[in-house]
Amino acid sequence: MSSQPPEAPSPHRVTVVGGGFAGLYAARSLGIDPEVRLTLVDRRNFHLFQPLLYQVATGALSPGDIAQPLRSVLRKQRNTTVILGEAIGLDPDRREVLMADGGPIAYDTLIVATGAHHTYFDHPEWASFAPGLKTVEDATEIRRRILIAFEAAEREAEPERRRAWMTFVLVGGGPTGVELAGALGEIAHDTLRRDFRAIHPGETRIILVEAMDRVLPTYPADRSASAQRQLERLGVEVRTRTRVIDIDESTVRVTGPDGAADEIPSRTVLWAAGVLTSSFGRKVAAATGAATDRAGRVVVGPDLTIPGHPEIFVVGDAAVEPWKEGHPTPGVAQGAIQGGRYAAQVIRRRILGRPYDPFRYSDHGDVAVIGRLSGVTNIGWLGPFGRQSGFTAWALWLGIHLVYLIGFSNRIVVLVRWAWTFLTHGRGTRLITGSKLLPQIEEPEPPVLAPMEPDGETSED
Amino acid sequence: MSSQPPEAPSPHRVTVVGGGFAGLYAARSLGIDPEVRLTLVDRRNFHLFQPLLYQVATGALSPGDIAQPLRSVLRKQRNTTVILGEAIGLDPDRREVLMADGGPIAYDTLIVATGAHHTYFDHPEWASFAPGLKTVEDATEIRRRILIAFEAAEREAEPERRRAWMTFVLVGGGPTGVELAGALGEIAHDTLRRDFRAIHPGETRIILVEAMDRVLPTYPADRSASAQRQLERLGVEVRTRTRVIDIDESTVRVTGPDGAADEIPSRTVLWAAGVLTSSFGRKVAAATGAATDRAGRVVVGPDLTIPGHPEIFVVGDAAVEPWKEGHPTPGVAQGAIQGGRYAAQVIRRRILGRPYDPFRYSDHGDVAVIGRLSGVTNIGWLGPFGRQSGFTAWALWLGIHLVYLIGFSNRIVVLVRWAWTFLTHGRGTRLITGSKLLPQIEEPEPPVLAPMEPDGETSED
Repeated sequence: MSSQPPEAPSPHRVTVVGGGFAGLYAARSLGIDPEVRLTLVDRRNFHLFQPLLYQVATGALSPGDIAQPLRSVLRKQRNTTVILGEAIGLDPDRREVLMADGGPIAYDTLIVATGAHHTYFDHPEWASFAPGLKTVEDATEIRRRILIAFEAAEREAEPERRRAWMTFVLVGGGPTGVELAGALGEIAHDTLRRDFRAIHPGETRIILVEAMDRVLPTYPADRSASAQRQLERLGVEVRTRTRVIDIDESTVRVTGPDGAADEIPSRTVLWAAGVLTSSFGRKVAAATGAATDRAGRVVVGPDLTIPGHPEIFVVGDAAVEPWKEGHPTPGVAQGAIQGGRYAAQVIRRRILGRPYDPFRYSDHGDVAVIGRLSGVTNIGWLGPFGRQSGFTAWALWLGIHLVYLIGFSNRIVVLVRWAWTFLTHGRGTRLITGSKLLPQIEEPEPPVLAPMEPDGETSED
Repeated sequence: MSSQPPEAPSPHRVTVVGGGFAGLYAARSLGIDPEVRLTLVDRRNFHLFQPLLYQVATGALSPGDIAQPLRSVLRKQRNTTVILGEAIGLDPDRREVLMADGGPIAYDTLIVATGAHHTYFDHPEWASFAPGLKTVEDATEIRRRILIAFEAAEREAEPERRRAWMTFVLVGGGPTGVELAGALGEIAHDTLRRDFRAIHPGETRIILVEAMDRVLPTYPADRSASAQRQLERLGVEVRTRTRVIDIDESTVRVTGPDGAADEIPSRTVLWAAGVLTSSFGRKVAAATGAATDRAGRVVVGPDLTIPGHPEIFVVGDAAVEPWKEGHPTPGVAQGAIQGGRYAAQVIRRRILGRPYDPFRYSDHGDVAVIGRLSGVTNIGWLGPFGRQSGFTAWALWLGIHLVYLIGFSNRIVVLVRWAWTFLTHGRGTRLITGSKLLPQIEEPEPPVLAPMEPDGETSED
């Protein structure tokens, strides 16, 4: 690489903005360097294991099971300070991160790892009807909506309104949409049959809408076909080459492959489609003049720094490598982890005056789980064995997620919950929490118990 | 007993309002009776194990660990229907419970088990400054406030403001106040020292304010003294015979035993004092003309029914037995469980035309835990052995709570988290969630890292 290390006082001040996969793994990789004084800034006080967030949304896990306080994770790194605060701007000339609530934070090297959030592109009005899944609050809100829908259906006697409560539309056929659909299929098969009295599994409709010609579009075509078959076996209707044109409280409007419009009456729509770089990522691009793509991701060079700013790394979902052919880094956890570790390695090598190679993403493969005992894998380096379906994929997925989950007690707790869910078909964390706790039934309907004539007063005392 | 069973069609329709300890144990006791058609109504879709709620508030457990969906718990009772809905009134002549969102629910026998919520008596304005601990949302809100206080203190350089962030005032020296104080003492000793860089354990002040002359006033005096000693060992300031006269955002005003007023600068005040019967309980009293006490609890007869209404039981925290001398039923979980089971037994015996005894509360004893490895017990039937302190009390407490916790997977998960907390001194579920995620620091202060002069631009590319 031709970039020279920026001159720096000793210790070298590294500021990491964002405690997701990219930021946390960068911070951990730099934690043993006495030459580095590290500051990690995040708006949240915990690292969230996002690949399992859909399990919180579907009542299999608790938020606390997949989150770990950043202070705990980095407790033993004596060179590290964690700051709970919001980075709202960058002064690249003074090398300072501007904070919403406190003075600026100086850096010699900055690692931007602020990720992305979901976006509705030109339809911000859809946000209230179709929540996305990026934060713990998103997950508990989706969980609330799914559970309220079943409760409302249980009490709704009018068939059409009841059908709308039992119809779930998932927008986006990527891993999140597919895994949510699989979990909903499982709930419809198992939970409904056991826990409710008036509604029946056969009444549930789960519709997965994808604009491309197949689900899991980043996987090879045969993996997509396998995923679709497994979804259909769970009762999920997969509609590819279908675009959402409108969403409101009770209806989703789509256009299908033939261009024909269709209306789906549904009270529960979940958004697993577009993402947009976080606002700090966009501000970094503006302050440094860096190029961005349509999703606002910052275009980085071969060493994951902004061209002209070798002291600013952008890693994880906030960055994009459009110049990269063949193996661009995908927006998944392993891409973020590798990017964060790479940035840490470059910083160390620069301090030592050593050369370093450009970033090379090493694709360990993808695994998606589809309900109980099913899933697909796409693990290139394993050759034909890397293309598993069904039980093998499911078991692999379980193992990988347990290994990468942060926090030993979380691993045990998640294992216990999964074992329990597997053995009993139950989902233990089905809590309706927040402000709207009750289903809004349009008109009062008679309760499940038919009212009888009251008996005469027989009390005596 | 002289009351005759009310005439009833077969099956006998029993409606239980409230899925807390009293309602749930009543429902479970009636679950195997084919002569009974049972309806359980609750505003929430889960049973909450309230004795462990303070552990959610202090980051040791997740809400999902101590809650279980009511539908799951009662799944196997084929005679039982669970309705998620809010009971807003009673028509005792028609024998119907009126619902906020749906038609009325008819009953032959009604079990009112709607419990109590906290109250600020004549000071509703204190609610926003001093949250109480009754619901899952209360617990996550208290958790948020405690964690935000430490985060703010870590960033606050001005000593007085910092001291106010690190001062915690607990109002009420009953079990909840004592257990919260113990958990906070543990956090100050362990978590602070390990996870933060700028604040120190010695700076934390935890003040427990109790209007009576001792903490745990329902325990024997020597148990109260032992609890106070153990609290003081954890650094808790216990102020008995002290009344709160005002609370605002940054100050608590109290009058001490000598009548002198004092001001405590504190940003975090937690309310563990007064309780008031739920609104449905008060409506039942109004509709039936039943007498109530100052806390709104319904005065019940020896069979836990409302005088003149043998078909309406009031059990748990919603009821009071002022006529009972010596052993009135205390407002704790075991009182509610026994009341619920007793009501179920009376209903069964009435259906069979058998006689039944008046309700007799059997005091199994009390256990309160005070931080790590400490606690007090008061178990009368064990004689002198029933008065334990320290480790024995703590171990007993653990065992009892694990046995009564609903749900096998919850027991394992809680055991894992406790073992982990015990071994590592860590608290894994310290998540700041909700809407206000960041501490509100009054004025921007310099960050922990002193800003240095920016280096000259050295980038080249």
